[in-house]
Amino acid sequence: MVEQQNKGIGKQALQLVLASSDELEELKSDMEQLTYQYCLGKTGSMDLQKVVSAIETAAKRNHIIKEKLYREMHALYHAILEAVQGVTRGQVQLGDVMRTVGLRFAVVRGKPYANEDEGEWVAVALYGTIGAPIRGLEHETAGLGINHI
Amino acid sequence: MVEQQNKGIGKQALQLVLASSDELEELKSDMEQLTYQYCLGKTGSMDLQKVVSAIETAAKRNHIIKEKLYREMHALYHAILEAVQGVTRGQVQLGDVMRTVGLRFAVVRGKPYANEDEGEWVAVALYGTIGAPIRGLEHETAGLGINHI
Amino acid sequence: MVEQQNKGIGKQALQLVLASSDELEELKSDMEQLTYQYCLGKTGSMDLQKVVSAIETAAKRNHIIKEKLYREMHALYHAILEAVQGVTRGQVQLGDVMRTVGLRFAVVRGKPYANEDEGEWVAVALYGTIGAPIRGLEHETAGLGINHI
Amino acid sequence: MVEQQNKGIGKQALQLVLASSDELEELKSDMEQLTYQYCLGKTGSMDLQKVVSAIETAAKRNHIIKEKLYREMHALYHAILEAVQGVTRGQVQLGDVMRTVGLRFAVVRGKPYANEDEGEWVAVALYGTIGAPIRGLEHETAGLGINHI
Amino acid sequence: MVEQQNKGIGKQALQLVLASSDELEELKSDMEQLTYQYCLGKTGSMDLQKVVSAIETAAKRNHIIKEKLYREMHALYHAILEAVQGVTRGQVQLGDVMRTVGLRFAVVRGKPYANEDEGEWVAVALYGTIGAPIRGLEHETAGLGINHI
Amino acid sequence: MVEQQNKGIGKQALQLVLASSDELEELKSDMEQLTYQYCLGKTGSMDLQKVVSAIETAAKRNHIIKEKLYREMHALYHAILEAVQGVTRGQVQLGDVMRTVGLRFAVVRGKPYANEDEGEWVAVALYGTIGAPIRGLEHETAGLGINHI
Repeated sequence: MVEQQNKGIGKQALQLVLASSDELEELKSDMEQLTYQYCLGKTGSMDLQKVVSAIETAAKRNHIIKEKLYREMHALYHAILEAVQGVTRGQVQLGDVMRTVGLRFAVVRGKPYANEDEGEWVAVALYGTIGAPIRGLEHETAGLGINHI
Repeated sequence: MVEQQNKGIGKQALQLVLASSDELEELKSDMEQLTYQYCLGKTGSMDLQKVVSAIETAAKRNHIIKEKLYREMHALYHAILEAVQGVTRGQVQLGDVMRTVGLRFAVVRGKPYANEDEGEWVAVALYGTIGAPIRGLEHETAGLGINHI
Repeated sequence: MVEQQNKGIGKQALQLVLASSDELEELKSDMEQLTYQYCLGKTGSMDLQKVVSAIETAAKRNHIIKEKLYREMHALYHAILEAVQGVTRGQVQLGDVMRTVGLRFAVVRGKPYANEDEGEWVAVALYGTIGAPIRGLEHETAGLGINHI
Repeated sequence: MVEQQNKGIGKQALQLVLASSDELEELKSDMEQLTYQYCLGKTGSMDLQKVVSAIETAAKRNHIIKEKLYREMHALYHAILEAVQGVTRGQVQLGDVMRTVGLRFAVVRGKPYANEDEGEWVAVALYGTIGAPIRGLEHETAGLGINHI
Repeated sequence: MVEQQNKGIGKQALQLVLASSDELEELKSDMEQLTYQYCLGKTGSMDLQKVVSAIETAAKRNHIIKEKLYREMHALYHAILEAVQGVTRGQVQLGDVMRTVGLRFAVVRGKPYANEDEGEWVAVALYGTIGAPIRGLEHETAGLGINHI
Repeated sequence: MVEQQNKGIGKQALQLVLASSDELEELKSDMEQLTYQYCLGKTGSMDLQKVVSAIETAAKRNHIIKEKLYREMHALYHAILEAVQGVTRGQVQLGDVMRTVGLRFAVVRGKPYANEDEGEWVAVALYGTIGAPIRGLEHETAGLGINHI
């Protein structure tokens, strides 16, 4: 039977995007013990394409994902789209429906299951604000996508 | 101009559903300082109606929401549905597409904006697992919904 | 070039579901002048299937649609689903997301275009309430679907 | 228990967008008796952002909604998106799927429930045509969104 | 009772987009026996509007659809959108979610039912690749839409 | 750079569900040359859960997918859901919106890319009819889902 480790890859990714700078230090040492790889970044836009692209680029540059291997890019892409659905809730659209986002993102890669055969998975977490393109007219938003690599 | 306080109502709700028992104690004292009201619970089902209902019932019983006031129930309902969209990513369905969830939920109510006129808001956070109706064949999932009351 | 008559088939259908009993009398005489066929009914349920079925049955029994002809049933079916999307706004679901409807419906059939070759079209209008399965915890809702027959 | 007044805020909004000029005069006197505030306008575009923006701008300029208060803008925004879903039925998209709209819109604000504690609500109604970006290749469309303020 | 002929209009359309050049010759003779009209083409873009437009234009130029008759354009349009939903699976979007398609399309028109009264129908089939805007980072995709004319 | 072999895994799956019994024999020998594994089956229901379940069961029983390995079940599940979206086009629902399907399905597993590192992928193809729960009131439908394993 498949068993999950104490700290899931998704929880780890969510805590990274929610963390204050103090909490980040603590999380980083957690990650090393779990042998998870990860990267963190920020992106903000009315253009959804830029949000998807920013996360893909960060994951490639930080060698979380091999950019020449389609199966890895495919796994990441669907994890990103699933996380974006948590952020947009309903229409996977930003500027077209007159709204903008400011997001922190984390991409975490590792083996979250005790059974070695389950192999590697990727988690994408997003947290930030969504709202009208006017400062302050916004509320918080979050999303999590997980996929096998 | 509208300004958000250091710790948003959504982050608070997400941290509640992600917290270990130690972390929960710390969060509870945070909540008191921010004068946020909240409740925490668990729900698991292949039946989406039961998930929605469990959260509504908890929010009513804990007096986070006035059950006789439709505007409050309406605010909560849409926050729940938005959080569920993060969990289901695509189809707002569970058993119909052969999957089940096991979730912790938090409902937080309070005034997240510095401007008093912005009034009260409600956040619903969900975190847990989604997968096939077979133990272990599941991965993590999360969602966040926010609405004005 | 295609030209629309003064009173569209969709407006006619919407006015039928919105009408008070006095207004209904007036509309009925309008319909005769426009040679539109129509039927009116009520349906209420947490079960979306019953809503779809009630409208189909009324349209068949009132001979607005020939039930043995698939092309007519197909045209009506898609007009119903489109109207239901206006009512449900987002998820085409009722009980699964813990809500119920009470609706008036109108099905109108006729030739809304000046060009005779445009042939017959069908409009389905819905108006009523949607909300929690508790009396009073509900607000208004409406939808309109139009298709060529 | 919550009770709705004779003439709902949504019906009022729908009748405003459906009204001929004669009918408009009658409706305006209705609105005054019900102490509803409202504005009426027109918008047409292949660009959904422009449709959303036109309704928001009209509601702000006519002081139906306080533009500096996020909770009011948030309430209006979701009512607009819900109405747009009735118009677009399926994909909340226009030009991307090669279609355009010409719409009348009404925004109505008031207290539709007998219980004073239910407070203010906003209704957005849309009615017009949707179709190919070629004059005449279009049919009617409508939508209604309602939210608490 | 309605009965379908041996070779459906949808299967025919799918086989056209899947066919090698040898298989195409065989299919063409099938089509003549069934008195189906059809056209074949290719389109590739990150812009969904161009995909819809390419299929509409081919169907008009090859006289599969009468471009001046809205009921025919309406039937084709919905068949295209349904086929596109098979291709995009979830969000009816391409560039906005950072992906591109390369597609073969077939539009087939004819009478697929034994009962003459069922009249003419249109099928749109799509087959090709979808993926990142980088050559090779893509997999196959397909879609089928059918509508009465 | 990633390169696709002459005959994609998706095309293979689609041809299996479209094939007459003669064509099937030919396809089977193709599959052996490509070292693809596959299974074929039939399912019909108003209950979407049964459709998903029938495909999963066939893939497990025919050892296309290892049922104890979540990463394989997860890959298959998402490929099924994507194929179902082509079949349902819009709402991933059957009985709830008063319709039923009769489908042939194929699950194909193999290495569709020339680059060995791209590893194994799974394709799910569906073809059959969708319509009212009355014999004959139906038209063809198809879907294709592809995922890395």
